[in-house]
Amino acid sequence: MIKLDLRRALPFLDPAESGRFRAEAAAAHRTLLDRIGEGSDALGWRDLLRSPDPTLLEEIDATAREIRERADVLLCIGIGGSYLGAKAVIQALTPSFTPPAGVPEVLFAGHHLGGDYLRNLLAYLDGKSVYVNVISKSGTTLEPALAFRIVRDWMNSRFGDTDERIIVTTDPERGVLNEMHRRHGYRKFVIPESVGGRFSVLTPVGLLPIRAAGIDAAALVRGAADGCRALEAEEDNPAITYAAVRNELLGAGYPVELLAAFDPRLGGLQEWWQQLFGESEGKQHKGLYPSIARYTTDLHSLGQYVQEGQRILIETILLIGEDDAGFAVPALDDDVDGLNYLAGRTLHAVNRAAYEGTAEAHADGGVPTLAVEIPRLSAEELGACLYFFEHAVAVSGYMLGINPFDQPGVEAYKRNMFRLLRRQGR
Amino acid sequence: MIKLDLRRALPFLDPAESGRFRAEAAAAHRTLLDRIGEGSDALGWRDLLRSPDPTLLEEIDATAREIRERADVLLCIGIGGSYLGAKAVIQALTPSFTPPAGVPEVLFAGHHLGGDYLRNLLAYLDGKSVYVNVISKSGTTLEPALAFRIVRDWMNSRFGDTDERIIVTTDPERGVLNEMHRRHGYRKFVIPESVGGRFSVLTPVGLLPIRAAGIDAAALVRGAADGCRALEAEEDNPAITYAAVRNELLGAGYPVELLAAFDPRLGGLQEWWQQLFGESEGKQHKGLYPSIARYTTDLHSLGQYVQEGQRILIETILLIGEDDAGFAVPALDDDVDGLNYLAGRTLHAVNRAAYEGTAEAHADGGVPTLAVEIPRLSAEELGACLYFFEHAVAVSGYMLGINPFDQPGVEAYKRNMFRLLRRQGR
Repeated sequence: MIKLDLRRALPFLDPAESGRFRAEAAAAHRTLLDRIGEGSDALGWRDLLRSPDPTLLEEIDATAREIRERADVLLCIGIGGSYLGAKAVIQALTPSFTPPAGVPEVLFAGHHLGGDYLRNLLAYLDGKSVYVNVISKSGTTLEPALAFRIVRDWMNSRFGDTDERIIVTTDPERGVLNEMHRRHGYRKFVIPESVGGRFSVLTPVGLLPIRAAGIDAAALVRGAADGCRALEAEEDNPAITYAAVRNELLGAGYPVELLAAFDPRLGGLQEWWQQLFGESEGKQHKGLYPSIARYTTDLHSLGQYVQEGQRILIETILLIGEDDAGFAVPALDDDVDGLNYLAGRTLHAVNRAAYEGTAEAHADGGVPTLAVEIPRLSAEELGACLYFFEHAVAVSGYMLGINPFDQPGVEAYKRNMFRLLRRQGR
Repeated sequence: MIKLDLRRALPFLDPAESGRFRAEAAAAHRTLLDRIGEGSDALGWRDLLRSPDPTLLEEIDATAREIRERADVLLCIGIGGSYLGAKAVIQALTPSFTPPAGVPEVLFAGHHLGGDYLRNLLAYLDGKSVYVNVISKSGTTLEPALAFRIVRDWMNSRFGDTDERIIVTTDPERGVLNEMHRRHGYRKFVIPESVGGRFSVLTPVGLLPIRAAGIDAAALVRGAADGCRALEAEEDNPAITYAAVRNELLGAGYPVELLAAFDPRLGGLQEWWQQLFGESEGKQHKGLYPSIARYTTDLHSLGQYVQEGQRILIETILLIGEDDAGFAVPALDDDVDGLNYLAGRTLHAVNRAAYEGTAEAHADGGVPTLAVEIPRLSAEELGACLYFFEHAVAVSGYMLGINPFDQPGVEAYKRNMFRLLRRQGR
């Protein structure tokens, strides 16, 4: 289970305020569990864990097996919640640089409008066996729709069996992708109506690419379901505590939360967190601004600012508890770099010392510092971590008095953009 | 030359205040040019452009040519300013996925303590011809020192001519890498003493990897030198204006600057900017907190927050003016996705409409929005952009009354870390 370490935040908290925020968080938690808050029709992400569909994982498994057997590359086309969850889990649980034997490379497209990227991607795919999973509730979001149009065109010029190689993940009934599914026979998975994009990683949106990447999707879901049950408690509930503390600190004048991770495998998880918290809480001019950093890399860039810049940051450090994937420092006869004193120690242990040193320095410098520890980087523990943050953001959002499940502000730029595109088109 | 567009920031500026900040920025600019501010012994980054060393580029050229001829992979080992500049330029100017013919893949290590990353990196390098460029002024920074120890050990087990394959970029005289250079004959390039890490991209620190990646390093330097000359002006100087406006907005109660780019090729440049501004300005509890976002990707994650969260952000949008690297939207007989109205338009043009729509929506929502436009993504224009930001941060830092060229806060976590490591080592 997720461990929350508050030692280096406590000096910044006021016991009387903490009691009040803690009570508010507990009330928000009840609002979530009792389904009486705003957006309670969008709690499918909890329902799916509490009463899972036994056949869904089997269907995903069968399709994922075919992809693993036949594809060199699985290209996932989607943006926002339609790719961040899969990216988070795959980056955390598969090796960098080269996928394991028998597993396709998972690449992404349709997550921006970079034409150079798409051109080089297609050049890279040339000669490889490609499957495509296009993920979009409406099918009309411009970035994935344009990428899919270009990629379909390219697929048709390359493969005789394009229609078998394309899988859509979309609304149960409506939208462009359902129309294509009917016309071309593309296989289809369904995005449940009661699950918003940023909460969809444990639906087919995330699970098909994750399983195709060779990850134990059942263990991921099991870990999340265990987390869901455990976090129903009102006492010793780290999600309630995290929501309470971050809102107390926001109230005390810290407007920004920096989520820093000490391992590059957690980079995708940080981006997923940034969407989850930014899109859930950034409403009515409220909510902590969610920022991310990769340590120790960014200790050599943002580090100076965290240590001595404006005192506007709270820092939440994401840690891996145990890790046997590492490397030991070799002993060398020639100790010219003077590092033999570290010989035999794992990089993980050195990294842990870097974390301890950083947390101490930042707290001493006036930055309230929390730590969230994932006991080990397994599918099960990662599933529990995903659920932990989902539960925490729902509680935290209700504390702010907003609906954590909508995103009314995302439409504003789209309206302008479509107006401009249609005007130019005339 | 760089174009600065203030149209969507002006409604947030006060004409009287703007005059005052503009005068302060002009004074800070004179302080920089007259070398009378704090840290004036660290202005080598300007001197190198004003009186370039004609032989240096030739030496870099010769070594880079050997790397291109003999290496499949150039592994750059460094952290902070010792890798962000090279990464920024290489990501901007070489294709994603596959390097051009005759050019090695450039990979990075020693920029964190992730043991899993390093293990998978070495597995990926197996069987490839590898050159290493290790970049560190002192040679004792822990992350690159440990990575270099492990990589050297691995190189010695793979190549008979390891010593020829290792190039050090370091202090003129002192430090561990000079000692190795003397013992092993590793080739050496020098980091000038008067250039700090985050200003070192146009020294051998950045130029050797950049040239090895097949980029016209001479054009990059020429563009920066042209920028350096042009930005000596006191009138119509976008670096002065940028420094003045961002400080006025900081004073008006916006503590965070979000640098958003509309092309993934600019991702490394954004990280370089984040170090440049965060490490130069984050002192004495001052300075805008530098945050970054990738659009349109992050319009589907952070976008909601930018539109409707706390009004604490100013947004600086990084744009590419012209771009012929793109793709045109294909016309399809089957217009089931309804996108034929965009047929023939380039993704670049669609992306531009997304920018216009975004800037308008964010400004309407209460976010002061600036745009910095690079006319096209060439080595020359990118060089001018690098210099633009370097000049601007020096001016901006002097306006804050701090020394923009030191980084006293970076040592704090290191002291704690080394204390912990030595204690555990006993």
